[in-house]
Amino acid sequence: MDERFEQQLKFLAEIDKMKSVFRQTVLIDKSRREDDASHSWHFAVMAMMLAEHCADRSVDFNRVVKMALVHDLIEIYAGDTFAYDAAGNTDKQQREEAAADKLFSLLPQDQGQEIRALWEEFDAERTPDAKYACAIDRLQPFVNNLMTEGHTWKRHGVTAAQVYKRMDPIRAAMPDIWDFIVKSIDDCIRKGYITE
Amino acid sequence: MDERFEQQLKFLAEIDKMKSVFRQTVLIDKSRREDDASHSWHFAVMAMMLAEHCADRSVDFNRVVKMALVHDLIEIYAGDTFAYDAAGNTDKQQREEAAADKLFSLLPQDQGQEIRALWEEFDAERTPDAKYACAIDRLQPFVNNLMTEGHTWKRHGVTAAQVYKRMDPIRAAMPDIWDFIVKSIDDCIRKGYITE
Repeated sequence: MDERFEQQLKFLAEIDKMKSVFRQTVLIDKSRREDDASHSWHFAVMAMMLAEHCADRSVDFNRVVKMALVHDLIEIYAGDTFAYDAAGNTDKQQREEAAADKLFSLLPQDQGQEIRALWEEFDAERTPDAKYACAIDRLQPFVNNLMTEGHTWKRHGVTAAQVYKRMDPIRAAMPDIWDFIVKSIDDCIRKGYITE
Repeated sequence: MDERFEQQLKFLAEIDKMKSVFRQTVLIDKSRREDDASHSWHFAVMAMMLAEHCADRSVDFNRVVKMALVHDLIEIYAGDTFAYDAAGNTDKQQREEAAADKLFSLLPQDQGQEIRALWEEFDAERTPDAKYACAIDRLQPFVNNLMTEGHTWKRHGVTAAQVYKRMDPIRAAMPDIWDFIVKSIDDCIRKGYITE
């Protein structure tokens, strides 16, 4: 077998593990916690369908879809760090760098570098593509929380200030939906899903 | 709220149900059956990473990734029809057309039409993009079966002739990996994972 294909196949089998990395978010039908593969799929579809709400018209939406597909791969080894977990977030970068070294080296060098660069760009949240990607990555669990009576927010006693901070990338990247975010948070505070 | 965004949001929440449509394939760690969202994600990543093995250089890989993301959406209402289930495949088209009418009409008309056209193109397997997409859609569960001692093949007593027929789109679309498919099937016959 061709050496490149052998490396690619090994990588593609390894990333099957994404389907068993569970997040704090639950599915809207509440049957189980969402896994990283499903989340990445939902994020990619959202990025594609909501492109018209992205304020920066220089964004390359095909690249954002690719970012969505690979942005959480390193969690196969680093695990999912809950967004509102301050302790878990202190050594997050170190764990994720080590995971990236291990995972992306399975691939032919050029592809490993390409995927790693895409993940690093997403993670740095500085380019227009990464800013829009980051906004959608925040919007996806927000919608699932809205549709499950604030499941994760209630469970962890998340405050309005925390949610506002977490959703902030949406404000700049997708200003025309920010009003929806604000109204939804207000509504969730009123219903007791989010602590004031 | 903007009417288009409201429609998009409704659709994006509805497709969360993809995470609860279960396929015959099991995860490589055998912890559960694979769901349609995870499968679509894996398919999209494979399409992206294996592009160099696609013989037809006119293929638009960004479009194939989009096809991968939406190709199974209609299963939310139509359910997953097992590839080797002859009875289930007789009324598959009718069930899927009805599902498409219901699901895609949630979206603003232009987007509903766009996604439906992408799904129909995939399903018809006639364009270069659809042919490559179809090859990857077959390769993904093939790899999972290889890595789980032929789990689904053994369970349903699938024959070599059936697997060859199912994998045939790979032969034309990705000729440089066909040898790997043939050798893998031979090996699985020898091990008793596939019936001769």
